[in-house]
Amino acid sequence: MSFGSMIEKIVAKSNPTVVGLDPTLEMIPRFILDSSLEKHGKGLEAAAEAVLSFNKALIDALYDIVPAVKPQCAYYEMLGWPGVKALKETIDYAKSKDLFVIIDGKRNDIGTTMQAYANAHLGYSDIFGESISAFGGDALTVNGYLGTDGIKPLLTICDEEDKGIFVLCKTSNKSSGELQDKLIDGQSVYSHMGDLCRQWGEDTSSNYGYSAVGAVVGATYPEQLEELRRQLPNTYFLVPGYGAQGGKAQGIAAAFDSNGLGAIVNSSRAIMCAYKNKGFDEKDFALAAREEALRMRDELLAYIAKPQLK
Amino acid sequence: MSFGSMIEKIVAKSNPTVVGLDPTLEMIPRFILDSSLEKHGKGLEAAAEAVLSFNKALIDALYDIVPAVKPQCAYYEMLGWPGVKALKETIDYAKSKDLFVIIDGKRNDIGTTMQAYANAHLGYSDIFGESISAFGGDALTVNGYLGTDGIKPLLTICDEEDKGIFVLCKTSNKSSGELQDKLIDGQSVYSHMGDLCRQWGEDTSSNYGYSAVGAVVGATYPEQLEELRRQLPNTYFLVPGYGAQGGKAQGIAAAFDSNGLGAIVNSSRAIMCAYKNKGFDEKDFALAAREEALRMRDELLAYIAKPQLK
Repeated sequence: MSFGSMIEKIVAKSNPTVVGLDPTLEMIPRFILDSSLEKHGKGLEAAAEAVLSFNKALIDALYDIVPAVKPQCAYYEMLGWPGVKALKETIDYAKSKDLFVIIDGKRNDIGTTMQAYANAHLGYSDIFGESISAFGGDALTVNGYLGTDGIKPLLTICDEEDKGIFVLCKTSNKSSGELQDKLIDGQSVYSHMGDLCRQWGEDTSSNYGYSAVGAVVGATYPEQLEELRRQLPNTYFLVPGYGAQGGKAQGIAAAFDSNGLGAIVNSSRAIMCAYKNKGFDEKDFALAAREEALRMRDELLAYIAKPQLK
Repeated sequence: MSFGSMIEKIVAKSNPTVVGLDPTLEMIPRFILDSSLEKHGKGLEAAAEAVLSFNKALIDALYDIVPAVKPQCAYYEMLGWPGVKALKETIDYAKSKDLFVIIDGKRNDIGTTMQAYANAHLGYSDIFGESISAFGGDALTVNGYLGTDGIKPLLTICDEEDKGIFVLCKTSNKSSGELQDKLIDGQSVYSHMGDLCRQWGEDTSSNYGYSAVGAVVGATYPEQLEELRRQLPNTYFLVPGYGAQGGKAQGIAAAFDSNGLGAIVNSSRAIMCAYKNKGFDEKDFALAAREEALRMRDELLAYIAKPQLK
């Protein structure tokens, strides 16, 4: 099934974007923090509940206009197990609103350990004979440095269910070139990783022309985006680095195919903190987030074809 | 401070090994599972408590003879937030027994996100003005595919406290060469990553000759171990792949310096499941684990110098 349901949601909402849910306490309006502190006192539980309330309100304000959310594990792990519980509850809530959930964990390991990550984030664990979904994401970001042994355990789940992975290829950050731009027999490391993504994807069924193995390609490197799009016609791209990191809509357009598909563009802070950036009252943080999400959608759609199924 | 306390524990116990705590329910003796089921019924809480009981009993049997433990995050995440709570409690228990704790998470990201991982696993998070340690590990495994932006956020914590990181260089699995063995201007990707480890380590203070930035180098590739040891005289190696994956003590010896330092060798399943492999009654699982840990220590010490401070 691969990325089928993600693509269908992108088309239905005519919006190829994903909202990153990367919450820190500094981002959360005071009234939410106060309410959580009153209930739990200080500590990780209070922080985790504030994060969950913030996320739910954002999801309520966005679910009818965006196809997907992308919680970033690091911000939940920072709050210990109560934070990880809030991650699970955020995922459950997003899925109850029919959003596609990309868990941004950049996980990587081999063999039975990678199988454990696959079960944890996308699949099911056999717990005393019961099949339990620990996190229940629809897609997971992964790091391919360990090669096929680190990817194969994910492919069965991707192929049997409506799941996908995004493998880091060319990341959006300044130092990404230290390894990724280096040349192996004249081919960059990121392009070599792209070839591996294509090969891994060939072991999955494709949906609307795309395999279950996507690639992470940063908006901050439009030339490489264009190059990788040509190289990998069946690979869906997750594109971070739009906005805050400097990626422009015009440059990102190269990541899309002629049907307005092929890429999903992430924005995190610009949406979560829109109320701060745009001078809204903090009570209106969700409204501000919605306004920024619509602005981003319209900006992208000015440069790409309206998403449609082939 | 870097790896100072780890090195001191290795010397004090004359044992350069680390016990991987990678528990699955299949590994846990029936009487522990039954006791947990009786208390919690089925579900993730029961599974997580069984894992914690198993880990604690293993730690009790091992803490006076081994310097360190290495819980692998995937197996805890597979049990959802109750599993992640068991991870934290395992770490707390190991530290109460004065063990050095390497969190095997292979985390990777950039900027504030990587800072969140650093705070979560090695440092502290500011939660409503309180400084809280979410997991409290002493070292973390990381993946350097994103370059310096993904490592720098960790270095302040490593340098100010007694913490370290191990960056994946040449991993123990069969497919590690798909990227890692490729040549960049005649130098392998793993050796290039080794150079980056050395550079990153130069930004940290060294302790007993070793920086805070270690490297993961698999026991299954003894030639590369030897090559990297020559290339990186100030980089501590975490060596997986001993035993079950085929790494031999003789080959691993090349990872050590003439003082019996420079490497810490991991064993997970061979120790955790020793009671199954060696025909012990399941009640004696901890005794069997201790016997295997001693056997492994003695096997390694036959090939390397007795660990001592320079």
